[in-house]
Amino acid sequence: MAKQHHSQTERHQSFSVFSDTIITNRNNPKIKQIRALLKRSERERTGLALVEGLRLVTEALRSPQRVRQLLIAPELLRSRHGQALLQEHRQKGLPCLYVSSEVFQSFSLKDNPQGIAAVVSQQWEQLEQVRLSPEEFWVALEAVQDPGNLGTILRTCDATGCRGVFLLDHTTDAYDPTALRASMGAIFSQRLVKTSFQAFANWKRLYHYPVVGASDAAVVNYRQADYPLPMILLMGSERQGLSSEQQTLCDFIVGIPMRGSSDSLNVSIATAVVLYEILHHRG
Amino acid sequence: MAKQHHSQTERHQSFSVFSDTIITNRNNPKIKQIRALLKRSERERTGLALVEGLRLVTEALRSPQRVRQLLIAPELLRSRHGQALLQEHRQKGLPCLYVSSEVFQSFSLKDNPQGIAAVVSQQWEQLEQVRLSPEEFWVALEAVQDPGNLGTILRTCDATGCRGVFLLDHTTDAYDPTALRASMGAIFSQRLVKTSFQAFANWKRLYHYPVVGASDAAVVNYRQADYPLPMILLMGSERQGLSSEQQTLCDFIVGIPMRGSSDSLNVSIATAVVLYEILHHRG
Repeated sequence: MAKQHHSQTERHQSFSVFSDTIITNRNNPKIKQIRALLKRSERERTGLALVEGLRLVTEALRSPQRVRQLLIAPELLRSRHGQALLQEHRQKGLPCLYVSSEVFQSFSLKDNPQGIAAVVSQQWEQLEQVRLSPEEFWVALEAVQDPGNLGTILRTCDATGCRGVFLLDHTTDAYDPTALRASMGAIFSQRLVKTSFQAFANWKRLYHYPVVGASDAAVVNYRQADYPLPMILLMGSERQGLSSEQQTLCDFIVGIPMRGSSDSLNVSIATAVVLYEILHHRG
Repeated sequence: MAKQHHSQTERHQSFSVFSDTIITNRNNPKIKQIRALLKRSERERTGLALVEGLRLVTEALRSPQRVRQLLIAPELLRSRHGQALLQEHRQKGLPCLYVSSEVFQSFSLKDNPQGIAAVVSQQWEQLEQVRLSPEEFWVALEAVQDPGNLGTILRTCDATGCRGVFLLDHTTDAYDPTALRASMGAIFSQRLVKTSFQAFANWKRLYHYPVVGASDAAVVNYRQADYPLPMILLMGSERQGLSSEQQTLCDFIVGIPMRGSSDSLNVSIATAVVLYEILHHRG
């Protein structure tokens, strides 16, 4: 708290708590590095990601060891909850970078930025290390393309008590800003594994974990199925659904009835309908 | 078909069927009008909308009286199904406008445009005219903001046999390009009513239609509820859920259990979970 005594010399008197320098140049090298995290290639190179907004930063701070740096625009951070969060984590020694609202907007994707963001480290588990506990269920996604769908699935996974998600083959990046936003922070509570379908298939066969697919090729209605635990729910991509090879890996396949002219559901909807059925069976 | 004889004079010999002039200037007044339909204000002024891609145009053509004009970029329309569709509706006398691929891209929102789009008339019903048949269920959305969510809800409505959707208060535009795309064409099969919550509440009370809300304020688990028919499922906005006034209108309110750190579901997910429960009860 001693730092507060320097506050009178600072640019923003009304934010006397922010005694550190405020970066006002959007071409500052640190800011460039932060902005680069909006690109998948840079996220993959560094293993870092940028999360923005009070909700996501709050969720990230539940695992404080994953937060590398807080990014604060004092002019924009009006929320009391946000200010309290900042105070608390500053006191714990978490590095904070203060930026002008213009600089903040240079990496913000929100229309009305809340003035709080964080650089976090990504967290991935190795498939070889993953073992399922008796009561667990997971989701495996084959080549899901839309980051909004992926984020929404992560959010639903969290809500249904799903333990984690396997991202198979060319599934979109879970740390994409759109995925992060749609996940509402569930990315920080779900365990994540990135692997190929082939490696996943080998792992499943080695440990005999039941895999249940969802597909319109199903013979079992999702309401009539007897879901084993542990299990993994395998969902196909938006366009293709499950290929015949993927279907072959499944212990059984459930179908979701459809009326009207529909021949398919959005993948995040289909995943949610089956996950809620599993949650119900699990009781 | 006589027009085909002129084809040798046309720009694109390989598309000899396209004997009409091909618009190559993106500032052509007709093209400007089409592009203007990407804006909500212009859609509301004209009562028209622009649908793009084979899937949406196919669904639109199931109600051919709603399609004002087909927009075709011969260079881009490679799909046989698309070409057959075009042939069929040209023969029926549907107006077609042929444009260069550059002009098509000037109003296209797709990365890889399929070279087929249509100007369609919006279709809205007046609340006062709407009566529910004994077996029907509808959805009412209060101020849903995200067009992707709205489109996904329309798609799920179609899949579950829901009859239509009430868009209350400041709900986003169902004819927004993102909503159209997410609806996968369900916009053409769902009945749509745009009204205020207040008018909806008066109408519900007049005809005694049961309204079931979904909210975390619920005391009834969505799996234990006894859904009446006809009924209307009322869903709140992404941020606010159902206000106390909206809850008061409901005959009862169902809740969806949540685990993990989640305090809410995406509105399109919550809607789907309850709609599939209603579909199951309806049998």
